[in-house]
Amino acid sequence: MFNFDFYNPTRIVFGKNRLNELVSFVPKDKNVLVLYGGGSVKKYGTLQKVTDVLSGYKVFEFGGIEPNPRFETLMKAVEIVKKENIGFLLAVGGGSVMDGTKFIALASKYQGNKPDEILYQGYKSAGISEALPFGTVVTLPATGSEMNSGGVISYGNGKYVVFSPLTFPQFSFLDPSLTFTLPPAQVANGVVDTYVHVLEQYLTYPVEARFQDRTAEGILQTLIEIGRKTIDNPADYDLRANLVWNATMALNGLIGSGVPSDWTTHMIGHELTAFFGVDHAVSLAIITPSLLNIRKDKKREKLIQYAERVWKIDEKDDDKKIELAINKTREFFESLGIKTRLSDYGIKEPDFDKVIKGLETKGMTKLSEHKDVTLEISRKILENAL
Amino acid sequence: MFNFDFYNPTRIVFGKNRLNELVSFVPKDKNVLVLYGGGSVKKYGTLQKVTDVLSGYKVFEFGGIEPNPRFETLMKAVEIVKKENIGFLLAVGGGSVMDGTKFIALASKYQGNKPDEILYQGYKSAGISEALPFGTVVTLPATGSEMNSGGVISYGNGKYVVFSPLTFPQFSFLDPSLTFTLPPAQVANGVVDTYVHVLEQYLTYPVEARFQDRTAEGILQTLIEIGRKTIDNPADYDLRANLVWNATMALNGLIGSGVPSDWTTHMIGHELTAFFGVDHAVSLAIITPSLLNIRKDKKREKLIQYAERVWKIDEKDDDKKIELAINKTREFFESLGIKTRLSDYGIKEPDFDKVIKGLETKGMTKLSEHKDVTLEISRKILENAL
Repeated sequence: MFNFDFYNPTRIVFGKNRLNELVSFVPKDKNVLVLYGGGSVKKYGTLQKVTDVLSGYKVFEFGGIEPNPRFETLMKAVEIVKKENIGFLLAVGGGSVMDGTKFIALASKYQGNKPDEILYQGYKSAGISEALPFGTVVTLPATGSEMNSGGVISYGNGKYVVFSPLTFPQFSFLDPSLTFTLPPAQVANGVVDTYVHVLEQYLTYPVEARFQDRTAEGILQTLIEIGRKTIDNPADYDLRANLVWNATMALNGLIGSGVPSDWTTHMIGHELTAFFGVDHAVSLAIITPSLLNIRKDKKREKLIQYAERVWKIDEKDDDKKIELAINKTREFFESLGIKTRLSDYGIKEPDFDKVIKGLETKGMTKLSEHKDVTLEISRKILENAL
Repeated sequence: MFNFDFYNPTRIVFGKNRLNELVSFVPKDKNVLVLYGGGSVKKYGTLQKVTDVLSGYKVFEFGGIEPNPRFETLMKAVEIVKKENIGFLLAVGGGSVMDGTKFIALASKYQGNKPDEILYQGYKSAGISEALPFGTVVTLPATGSEMNSGGVISYGNGKYVVFSPLTFPQFSFLDPSLTFTLPPAQVANGVVDTYVHVLEQYLTYPVEARFQDRTAEGILQTLIEIGRKTIDNPADYDLRANLVWNATMALNGLIGSGVPSDWTTHMIGHELTAFFGVDHAVSLAIITPSLLNIRKDKKREKLIQYAERVWKIDEKDDDKKIELAINKTREFFESLGIKTRLSDYGIKEPDFDKVIKGLETKGMTKLSEHKDVTLEISRKILENAL
């Protein structure tokens, strides 16, 4: 096991009908900015519930944070923060709203006049030493943003990862019943996003980290069991509660502590989303099986473990075992209604140059747990995904 | 899944040779009291290493915190805190030192003149609203005290559980190599203690909490794999690292969130320790198999799941499956060198009255996840353990 630090101070408030407890955690003496995305939190009443609970507070609202939240949009919220003397942010939504809120929390404390340097250079180099405090009310289980300190922000044709110990949510309300109204495709995306978060931290090479391995395998097994079912039975509380909690646990630092991690799939996937507009989770479903095909020698031992423990593949030949596990992974994504080939989305070989150039521009020339995925290998992964 | 809150702000610093990083976390402007137990942290140099790292600090020492730390001992440390204007506590040791330090952190802020009311009534009723901050350097993997806010304090013939959100360690240093010098019996105790912590939160009744179940099962499987090996190979870093991290994860709130828990074994076990001086873990190894025998109808579904997933018992008849799983649990404890019968420790039927009276005095007349373990049933469990 590698040396590691683990620190996660986010308070989780999990369960049905608990939004009235927001008053225990949102500070009463601060102006509060409630942030949200498209219309669904309005349409299904979650926003109204939140503002009702906060009726004694001075509340401002900022809507329209888009999927893959954009720098320009978020900077408009920063203007409101400054103008209205906002002291607390409350994100109501999914990963994009939460990620965007983290950026706003940092950018609100930025003193310079080139705020995009927060994306390029990170909060520290941008001179930021504190962030606005914030909490979240989660309406979409997928990204794990509710219990970590990272976010992904879009700017130009790029997606930028913003990480900071200053941007853990103070609290996150996870009420599975708030997610019942999600369209099936978004739930499917949430299942795949969670699954691939686990794979990025698990399918690398063995380092004798048994807790991390088994916990990762447990999340994967659960997603396989409940993934299709919770899409088909959106109002089944227990199924959805398991998706919500596993999604949070998949990316809160727990299974990634003391082990190597890959993240190649995410980095290539970000480029696919930036250039061709495919959903984040869809990009992961496309890249994952191909990456495993191309990288199966480097991931051999863990792929065998994955085949045996997660898929219970009873097969003597290790190569076959690995092949079956990769196939089953693809079939699982497809069973959720997500196509896993670039050609399914009209992306063709001539488009690859853009993706490779995008990776190059961001310095992503040595990806993976071994830092050996060159642009050439990334191209092979794309070719395999056609 | 039940509704739940999860909050755990303890920072974990895990790995080899990291004690020099203590200076990043121990406040430089406070008088520091370093607390420890018997002589082993002196004998094996851990205390020296810690005080060397803190050479620029104003450090005081308090040794002699005994196993099952006693109220009277801890109150002597409170005197030092007050006399020397201590602002930070650093526990160097195992569960007893950490538990004791939590009590000292609370009692140092107690304003009244009957400090034993903290034990009887809890910190809140005793008027305590803050605690001294503290960190830990862990030398014995077992209790999980390094990443939770509870402790068990002995007073008179009783053991009292002290819980408070004020007493999470600010940080815990977990260096597996600091535990290499532990005697085999203490390592065995640590394995059993961890195992039974998991069982108390897992072997109850199903509530569709798949993450919690699978994570619990993962810890149990790992303990079965590594328990005997890490006793036999004390300086094998990876084996010990897995014991240390699983011990922490077994009782930091993670696997207990959103599920029922039992704790009957601990409550009866505490009485055995108080009256007959058996080690805490030994008391758990004695009571667990008997409790499972007596309560197997109430725990039927989870016992079957335990048999299948943890012990991989391939057996059609459910009753046999359960019996085999209970036997295997007992055999596992015995394989670590821990006898599992009361008679092995000279405890006989006439002694039971004391235990039952002890439970009664503390109001422990309705134990377990169903609150239906009466004194009569507790006696049956003892009888089964003879």
